Amino acid sequence: MHQFQFIADQLGERLSTPAPVLLLDVMEENILRMQAFADAHGKALRPHVKTHKSIEIGRRQLAAGATGITAGTLGEVEVYAAAGFGDIFLAYPLIATGTKGDRLRAVADLAEVRLGIENSAAADAVAHAFADAPQRIGLVIEVDSGAGRSGVQPAAAGELARYARDLGLRVDGVFTYPGHGSKPGMREAAAEDQARALGEAVESLAAVGVRAEVVSAGSSPTVAFSTHDVITEVRPGEYVLNDHDNFALGNCAAEEIGFFVATTVVSDQGHAHVIVDAGTKALAREGNYDRGYGQVPEVDGVLTVLNEYHGFLTLPEGGTRPAPGQVLPIVPHHVCPVMNSFDEVILSDRRGRYLGTWSIEARGQLN
Amino acid sequence: MHQFQFIADQLGERLSTPAPVLLLDVMEENILRMQAFADAHGKALRPHVKTHKSIEIGRRQLAAGATGITAGTLGEVEVYAAAGFGDIFLAYPLIATGTKGDRLRAVADLAEVRLGIENSAAADAVAHAFADAPQRIGLVIEVDSGAGRSGVQPAAAGELARYARDLGLRVDGVFTYPGHGSKPGMREAAAEDQARALGEAVESLAAVGVRAEVVSAGSSPTVAFSTHDVITEVRPGEYVLNDHDNFALGNCAAEEIGFFVATTVVSDQGHAHVIVDAGTKALAREGNYDRGYGQVPEVDGVLTVLNEYHGFLTLPEGGTRPAPGQVLPIVPHHVCPVMNSFDEVILSDRRGRYLGTWSIEARGQLN
Repeated sequence: MHQFQFIADQLGERLSTPAPVLLLDVMEENILRMQAFADAHGKALRPHVKTHKSIEIGRRQLAAGATGITAGTLGEVEVYAAAGFGDIFLAYPLIATGTKGDRLRAVADLAEVRLGIENSAAADAVAHAFADAPQRIGLVIEVDSGAGRSGVQPAAAGELARYARDLGLRVDGVFTYPGHGSKPGMREAAAEDQARALGEAVESLAAVGVRAEVVSAGSSPTVAFSTHDVITEVRPGEYVLNDHDNFALGNCAAEEIGFFVATTVVSDQGHAHVIVDAGTKALAREGNYDRGYGQVPEVDGVLTVLNEYHGFLTLPEGGTRPAPGQVLPIVPHHVCPVMNSFDEVILSDRRGRYLGTWSIEARGQLN
Repeated sequence: MHQFQFIADQLGERLSTPAPVLLLDVMEENILRMQAFADAHGKALRPHVKTHKSIEIGRRQLAAGATGITAGTLGEVEVYAAAGFGDIFLAYPLIATGTKGDRLRAVADLAEVRLGIENSAAADAVAHAFADAPQRIGLVIEVDSGAGRSGVQPAAAGELARYARDLGLRVDGVFTYPGHGSKPGMREAAAEDQARALGEAVESLAAVGVRAEVVSAGSSPTVAFSTHDVITEVRPGEYVLNDHDNFALGNCAAEEIGFFVATTVVSDQGHAHVIVDAGTKALAREGNYDRGYGQVPEVDGVLTVLNEYHGFLTLPEGGTRPAPGQVLPIVPHHVCPVMNSFDEVILSDRRGRYLGTWSIEARGQLN
């Protein structure tokens, strides 16, 4: 990732900092690499758009062979359905009451929509919203594979499937998010937990007479190990751009990181840190696995404190001291909330050529 | 703040969660209270708009008697200048080279603009951008009063003032941000540090023949103690809405908090937590002084972990367990980045009457 400084220098005045920069060639390679992996293992690839929230990136993922997309909010589904995406899985245990029921019903007329579900209240809400067409939407039952977040225990999947079926609804399968695979050293073990949980859930559905057509697995950290026969599709998101957490976890090589935030040094008053113009509102205070909230390899620096518009870039003792006015690339820890901070992203490539901008159309679609 | 549950219940289906709710009557009282305080002490009030980023709220602050506004980014200045705000202080050590120089020059034709400055590179940039009209913009020298962020040492203010003056620029005064006053128990001491630093800086300017017309002090935590004679204006921001950090620090009473985020419980799988639909992209992972990333007084719960669209709401043992589908109000720790997460805010009052929505026009203006 050290070439980021070269790229930032080439872009020069194109960068009004803090500025998000996306490397199109790196991204294209990431898209093709993941698609080739999914193809080689006979899995459908359904990328999670929460990472990039860009219609154009979603289109490129489909063009490379993705079977459809995964969304995290109803607002994301609406943006992509309106843009013509025909196959969308809302992998979230939405409880679609009130206006959300109306909205969900409306997008199901625009696209083939599947919805995550993990409790009976959610099933009741879908039955109400789709009273006129209860088979119009596919339900995918969420099971907990060890993250302890949402999802029923695998053996209980059948019970919820029966509940939904008795309401006249259509159950298409099961999914899980092996979130514990985002912890250091846990990728492979979490993928094993995932396969076991999905297998149990499929059996639990079969026991009540429901065939799991969809058996859907996460995630960028675990996808390399999610090749078990039971799995029909994978839903990685971050692989498309990557970030420092994925690099630190071993999910990607440094040269597979396709995104950085350019920042300007605005103050050097001789402290252990200089001040840069990227703070919480740009970087979203995300930090894991390493200290701090963003890495600046060019000066071996770390963002140790963030205020809203001020980043404290702590430098190694005796190291290079960037001068006020200097532009530096920050490698974020977690790319998803950083993309969501900006309305558009600057496009470049490894050679630092300016290639225009893209809107981040689904930015801020939080509900 | 316990009436937030009542308000959320009254708003009912108006809330598509996660949803930011602003209480107009509370806000109006906060505006009037701070204005009365500033008037009583003979200080100009220049509220920081980074908290709310709303044109309408800025207008109400002016209507109540504020002398102008404070901005944190050039983009914020542009939004407010275009909306007719005539007196704007960009309290940030911007280095206005390249397009930022052009932009700064353009807004200075729309409004009376002052700019923070704390190094010679920034002065050089202003001299270049305003080569045709070097007196068109006022510079306000930033001094460090103990936060260790940006700003020259107070005794060095005169040297920078002379440097700027020798470039033909106009120096109007000094400002500081006593950020160390945001730590528990530090408000009064930080305000004393602030007064001392500003006094020294004024003398330092006087020694080179520059009169400090503006002597500008922060901030919501310290404003109550920022009544020293040397100070001409105060720049609080958060007072307009308040949040849990300000409450915990003793800056405001519970009933002076005028903002919450409504969230829906989407999962209860019997863990110590339930899952709600407000995560990092809504709440911005801000937590201080108390554990967690948001408080839910109604169930005595705390958001202990945030994923992008999932909040882990940890409940007290044996306490009330909210059911999936239930809407709960979250009191954020830090209101500013939360407002910046949303494109519009829902308006209500203490009685839970729905009063429409406002756009957050300067949301995402990060550069």
